[in-house]
This record gives sequence, C-alpha cells and structure tokens, in this order.
Amino acid sequence: MTFDFPVADRYRGLATSPVKEIFALAARPDVVSFAGGIPDPALFDLDAVRRCYDWVLTHQGQRALQYGVTEGEAEMREQAAARMSRFLPTSADQVQITSGSQEGLFIAAQALLNEGDVILVESPTYLAAVQAFAAHGARIIGVPCDDHGVLPDALEAAIGEHSPAALYLIPSFQNPTGRTMPMSRREQVGEIVLRHRLALIEDDPYGDLRFSGEALAPIASLPGLSKQTLLMNSMSKLMSPGVRIGWTRAEGPIGQTLAVAKSAISMQSSVVDQLTVARYLETEDLEGHVAQVIDVYRHRRDAMADALSGRLPDSAHITYPEGGMFLWASLGSGINAQDMLADACDAGVAYLPGWSFFAQDPDFSTLRLSFVTHSPDVIAESMDRLVGVIDRTLEQPI
Amino acid sequence: MTFDFPVADRYRGLATSPVKEIFALAARPDVVSFAGGIPDPALFDLDAVRRCYDWVLTHQGQRALQYGVTEGEAEMREQAAARMSRFLPTSADQVQITSGSQEGLFIAAQALLNEGDVILVESPTYLAAVQAFAAHGARIIGVPCDDHGVLPDALEAAIGEHSPAALYLIPSFQNPTGRTMPMSRREQVGEIVLRHRLALIEDDPYGDLRFSGEALAPIASLPGLSKQTLLMNSMSKLMSPGVRIGWTRAEGPIGQTLAVAKSAISMQSSVVDQLTVARYLETEDLEGHVAQVIDVYRHRRDAMADALSGRLPDSAHITYPEGGMFLWASLGSGINAQDMLADACDAGVAYLPGWSFFAQDPDFSTLRLSFVTHSPDVIAESMDRLVGVIDRTLEQPI
Repeated sequence: MTFDFPVADRYRGLATSPVKEIFALAARPDVVSFAGGIPDPALFDLDAVRRCYDWVLTHQGQRALQYGVTEGEAEMREQAAARMSRFLPTSADQVQITSGSQEGLFIAAQALLNEGDVILVESPTYLAAVQAFAAHGARIIGVPCDDHGVLPDALEAAIGEHSPAALYLIPSFQNPTGRTMPMSRREQVGEIVLRHRLALIEDDPYGDLRFSGEALAPIASLPGLSKQTLLMNSMSKLMSPGVRIGWTRAEGPIGQTLAVAKSAISMQSSVVDQLTVARYLETEDLEGHVAQVIDVYRHRRDAMADALSGRLPDSAHITYPEGGMFLWASLGSGINAQDMLADACDAGVAYLPGWSFFAQDPDFSTLRLSFVTHSPDVIAESMDRLVGVIDRTLEQPI
Repeated sequence: MTFDFPVADRYRGLATSPVKEIFALAARPDVVSFAGGIPDPALFDLDAVRRCYDWVLTHQGQRALQYGVTEGEAEMREQAAARMSRFLPTSADQVQITSGSQEGLFIAAQALLNEGDVILVESPTYLAAVQAFAAHGARIIGVPCDDHGVLPDALEAAIGEHSPAALYLIPSFQNPTGRTMPMSRREQVGEIVLRHRLALIEDDPYGDLRFSGEALAPIASLPGLSKQTLLMNSMSKLMSPGVRIGWTRAEGPIGQTLAVAKSAISMQSSVVDQLTVARYLETEDLEGHVAQVIDVYRHRRDAMADALSGRLPDSAHITYPEGGMFLWASLGSGINAQDMLADACDAGVAYLPGWSFFAQDPDFSTLRLSFVTHSPDVIAESMDRLVGVIDRTLEQPI
C-alpha cells in the first residue's frame, strides 16, 4: 500500500526548484556552462583558508566544536560590522550571521511577511530570493526597470497600487542583469522608500567585485534609510560559497525578531566556519585576494563582451556590467531562449534562460551568462558557438 | 522619526526564544549550569577533527570551498546512509543533509504543515521542535505519556479528535525527560501510526548515547513504517554541535519536496563541514570515541542520580535515563520550578524549568537537568545545593 506524505500548499506541485536545476545543468560534463554563478575554484585563496581553519582548530578548537550564539560568534560579527562600516557605521550587535545570504533572505521573509503580503522586486530579479519570499505565501510583484535599476515612477505607482510590505533590491551588479543603480537613482529610490515608510531588503553580495569606477554606497547608507533597511552581505562571492557565511545588518527591535527566526530555522551557523572566516578577515589579505579575482573577472567580462559585440541580432540588447558575475542579453523578436537551450547544449554551450527571473510578464528572449567560471579562450570559443546557435535559430521558419 | 518594520504574525510579540534563553543562562559565569544540553568540550575528539579538516582542505580544497549539492555531498550522504542502515536499510539518495537537526525539523515543517494543521507531540517534548512547528502556524497538541513514552490509548484518542497532519516523537532518551520507549511500546505506537496512515517525524539525536542495555531500533524500522516516517539523526551529540551537521531519511517523492524547501531556506549546508564529517566517519573511530563519551556520561548520570536519591520530597518523581543527556524531575506539590530558579541561581546552580516543554497544561513543578557537562564532583556538590534550595522552598509559607 502506498503512502503519501501531506505536502504543504506552499510546495504542492513543485517538483523541483529553478536554482537546483541551474546546478544540475552546470554539472553536465559535455557542456561548457555559463548558467550558474559559480566562482572559478582555481581562484580560491585556499592556502590562506586552510591556515585559518588550522589556527581555529588549534587555538579555539573546543569552542569551534561547541554550540555557539544564535546571532553569530562575536569575532565574526565584529569583522562583518567592520566591513559594513566602510559605507555605513555598524556595530557588531547590529549584525546577524547567516548560513549564506540565502538563509538571510529566508529569515527576512520569516520575520516580515504574512501570507498574501506583497513584496516588490526588480523585474527581473534573483530567483532564489523569489523562492524564499514565495515559500511564505507572499505575492511577488516585479517593478519595471531600465539599465539603471528600478524606475522611480514605476516604483511609486507599484507602492500606490499594492501597499507592499517590503521592497527587495540588488543595487550593485544585479543578478541576473549585471546592472548597477547609479548614485542618483539610489537617491531617488531612497527618497521614495523613506517617504512611504517602506521596509527595504537590500542585497549586496557583488558590490565589492567592481572592475572599474568608484564604489557606490548602499541605499541603506543614505540619510534616514539605515533604520528601515535590512542590508545583506555574503562571503560567497569574495572568499567561498562553500563555507556558507553571510550576514544581515538591522537596527532596532527587528534584530531580535530575526534572531528568533534564526533560532527556529537552524539554531546558529557553523561555529567552525564562522571563527575561520573571522580569522581570515582579521589576519589574511581579503582586499589583495579580491583585487586578483577582479583582475581575472575583468578580462573574462571583456572576452565575453568582445565575442558578442556586433554579432547579436539588431533587436538584441546586452548589458556591459562594471562588476559582478553576470552579463544579460535580451535577444529580441524571433528567439525563445528556453526553446533554444537544447540546441545550445548540443553545440556544447549552456546559459540560463532568463524567463524564470521574472515575477510577471517574462521576456522569453532573455538569457543570463556568467562570465566568471571559464578562461577568456574558452569564453571566446563558446560565444562563437552560441552566436552560431542564435543565427541558426533565426534562420528557422517560425 | 521612528520606523517599525512589519513583523509577521508568527513572530509578533515574541521578544525572544526559550532555546536562546537556555544558552544565555548557561553562559552566566557565577552559576554551575545544568540547563543546556551542552556536551563537555573536554571530550571532543579534537585532534581527529582537525586532521579531517586539514585532509579535506589539502585534498578536496577547491571542492570544499565551492557551491555544493542541495541534498548534501555524496560522501556525507553515503556515510549517513551507512549509519542508518545499522537499523534500517538506507541508500544515500534517501538522505538529505541538514544544518543540524534543527534545520531538519524546520524543513519537515515547511514541507508538511499548513497553517492550522495539528501536529501531535509527546507531553512534554523538545521545545525547539515546537518552535519550528509553531513558526508554520501549526497547532501543537501534547499527548499524555508515562515513563515509557506516549500512551497508546491517548495517542489513539488524540488522532480521533484532532485529525493531525503528523506525529513528532523522540523515542530514545527523550529531550527533556530522558525516557525511552521500549520495543513493545514502539510496536504499539507504530501499529497506530500505520493504521491511521499518519506521517511520523522520528527524531533520534541521542540513540547512540546508550549507557547500558540493548540498542533499540527506530520506529521507522518496523514493518511498513519506513515509508511514512521522516527519520532524523545528528552529529551534534556524537561528534560536535558546532559543525551543524544532521540528516533526514525519507522515502519517495517527499524527499524532493524536502530538497525544494532546503534550497529556499539555505541552498545547501557548509561543504567544508560536510566533507570533513564524512572524512571523520570514514577514517576515524567514531564508535571508539562515543564509547569513551558514554563511559564518562554514565558516571555523571550516576553521580546526579545518587546525589538526588532519597533527598527529594515524597511527591517527587525522577527519571533514571539509560542514556542521553537529561534527567527530569517532577517535584510535585508546593514547588514552582520557574519561581525557584532565582534562588537556585543565587545558590550557584541553574536548571531548566520544565513548563516550557509542555504544549498544553504545563507541570510547573518540573525541571530538566543535563548531566553531561560537569564532573561527578561538581555534580554532587551542585545537587547538594539544589536539594537545599528545594528544602528551603518547601519550608516557605505559600
């Protein structure tokens, strides 16, 4: 006799998750994948990380293996606060350590969102964030954007129409588009957020991966905004995604609510990993390491942009990101990037179709290309193949 | 102008969490605490663990720092499956790795429970599990128990009355009571669960910490029950709570739902920690290590039981656990263990008041004592002081 577990409505009919499929796709051995946002493992600062694990287990071993603190270990909170204080004065007790940014997003949703609440997001936006919000029964409304991020008039209109509980933004080198909100746009958006007393979830995992130009301060650092923003950083893109260490900055009593949620979800994050990351930030040269990574990534972005330049259909629009990991192409009429993926994989190249990043009205001609994983030569050759697939697709009768 | 974040109904008015308060209490330097279920850090197998971290970072470093698999790294799933297979044949693909059992409980609640669903629990039961269920709006109904666990007639009646979505049990060395369901009771309960086609969440973090007698198979291993049980283990009590590695066994399509939930919550658990724990289980001597721990814990249980024997009021009932970490006392009439805690702390000894472990009808005379953290001498002296506090409390006019 078969038995079926009860399945909560939030997951009924969901056989799998888009993010999981990214990783499955990226693992196919016969395909050069630009689908996942996977750092190049050859660039990891492995010797330094091993040194830090060894130091922690030698000098703080009993503590590293013991239960820790829900909000995070003191050293890790101090180091996270110091990094955030480059742009926004932050004390350790305003920082909660999370198991990657993903847990930070899930905790924010647990703490803030009731079923049926509206959360406004950029259109398109990071799909794993949408998953975390959707798991709480939130209605996710995409706000129209241009190459400088969310459009102020559209944001104003969406607030008026939907009375949202929160706004979710990735202002720097956004996933999936690679676009960055300039300071003037941050100020316009911040003014609207302030005036409507709207809670802002500001996700900034890529901001330090800037290839050129000046670093931009987070929206949270604009006057009055720090107290109504949950600002999130992560070590995943700077040091290692495998250690799963991120953090959230919050002011006032909401920090306590985040801690109650964290306690229910996972009690605390790995103490070994927290102490090791704190040691790394204290004693190793993250800035120097990131400078090396940026240098490599910049060349790869150039290789990808050069290989595509002038070779996409006239109807195409492509971003030229100043940092981060992603380039985004809207190929325009005649192309369905989801349908084209099978041909691309047959040609040995994979990308991520863009439609899944839209909360509403998906643009099926879009695709996301990560430029960080492969060498410039592999990128150039793969983009040649991709251009060939696009050309063949356009030649087919519709 | 102040700003108040919206707070989801599930956390409204919850200023803190009971589990967090355990750890805060345990950290007071002037008090010998028996409140938390804190392993003695002097017993950690630190050299072996350091060896395993070093091996992983030397031989699997790039993989350890990279993104991993939502369900868990293959080696870790294999090792977890091998441990479970001692009692119940388990394949690696039936195992999901979680960031401690707490995340496993939260994921189970995410996957199974809608708001308003009833989940049956032992009365009393593990309060952090109740938190994970309550965060999903579940109604938590405690089923009456005796020293052998949940009472079959009471379970039958509760199923009839509440049509529960699931039943949550800790059959071995339960938290908080230390009690164990004998095989005959497991069979009676299993028969009821089968007949009512009820989903069972079986939490077994302590089962391997048995001081005497035969190991008991989990309820999930009884005929027909594996397919309707989510069975959970953890390394927290055997190796280290700080590494946050636990796992859930599931058969059939519910495993996919658990993975979707895990992906939304935290993407995956620390790859470094997973590979290290797998290496530890593969190459080090966990059984030998646990045998040493058991030997120490047995003496400590004896020290605590001896120090209390014959010295509690006639109305008191105390458990004599054959394993695990906890001893449970119901002091009976005239004592409110919550009110008495301040006097106990003034006398330099802390316990955990038992009322918070009850879903309904709390017995305020109960308290939980962890016997694993301190030496027999410290236990004996502290129990002397606790007996003094109890005696003085009984002498006070009510």
